[in-house]
Amino acid sequence: MRIVGVDPGLTTTGYGVVEVEGREVRLVEGGVIRADTPETPLETRLSSLYDGVLEMLQQFRPEALALEELYSHYAHPETAILMGHARGVICLAAAKSGIPVFNYASTQIKLSATGNGRAPKDQVQRAIQARLQLAEVPKPHDVADALAIALCHHSVVGSPLWTATGGATP
Amino acid sequence: MRIVGVDPGLTTTGYGVVEVEGREVRLVEGGVIRADTPETPLETRLSSLYDGVLEMLQQFRPEALALEELYSHYAHPETAILMGHARGVICLAAAKSGIPVFNYASTQIKLSATGNGRAPKDQVQRAIQARLQLAEVPKPHDVADALAIALCHHSVVGSPLWTATGGATP
Repeated sequence: MRIVGVDPGLTTTGYGVVEVEGREVRLVEGGVIRADTPETPLETRLSSLYDGVLEMLQQFRPEALALEELYSHYAHPETAILMGHARGVICLAAAKSGIPVFNYASTQIKLSATGNGRAPKDQVQRAIQARLQLAEVPKPHDVADALAIALCHHSVVGSPLWTATGGATP
Repeated sequence: MRIVGVDPGLTTTGYGVVEVEGREVRLVEGGVIRADTPETPLETRLSSLYDGVLEMLQQFRPEALALEELYSHYAHPETAILMGHARGVICLAAAKSGIPVFNYASTQIKLSATGNGRAPKDQVQRAIQARLQLAEVPKPHDVADALAIALCHHSVVGSPLWTATGGATP
């Protein structure tokens, strides 16, 4: 199955597409969707983001879209609310493309990548690099973060526990 | 000019359309867009909301869409973040319809309706009823709230201060 992880932002949104075959997982593509400058009205930036996500989904046709939950950003509620706007149009693009959305807590994503739910960012990135057998850490960091989210979904749907509940196609 | 105020929600989104001619303002329509039940996946509810807002904007063709800022909901960050998703797709629907979005703080909306930025909800609703010469307070409250937002935008764009800055068509 093909999974896309998305790391939302109002200027730069990272995405990472992986292809899973049994226990094997390989990188298909990583990239960023750039919205307009911060001076552009929010609705115009959301429109660019929506078009970019729709286009990416149409190009790679993933079977699942994975996102990080926003609740870890409570320390900066204004940012979290604004990111909610971006996340809303990403979920909408998935719905309009018929792709189900899965949400994971930040700690779950780190745990799945490194075995430590509080791992520092660079450790997560190196784990992603190793897992996907890449020559270097994906850049910019938005892409590495998106790939970590996609791999987290893979670890969940690929686990015996999940398969046992019959919740999804492994 | 025609203004729509929107009061976002993930199950019920209120809207209120007013027509302004000079200092006169009249109600065109108030209503609600109902998304699916809370059990429905978020992305599906956002999709219903988006379609409903697009349809409403196409029907009434307002020249401005007014929204309340979310920052007053800090006490409930989870709710504010979820509402950010709804607000994001409403902004997107406005952008896709070529309609500019204007944001007002809760205190500004109350101040514009009643002269008191901390007025209780029922006082704001009665003020809206009086301003639009309605036989009763608009129901459900989502519609009354949406009309208060629309009238706040009217009070701002119709004020001499605003006209002097040349910021918008009065």
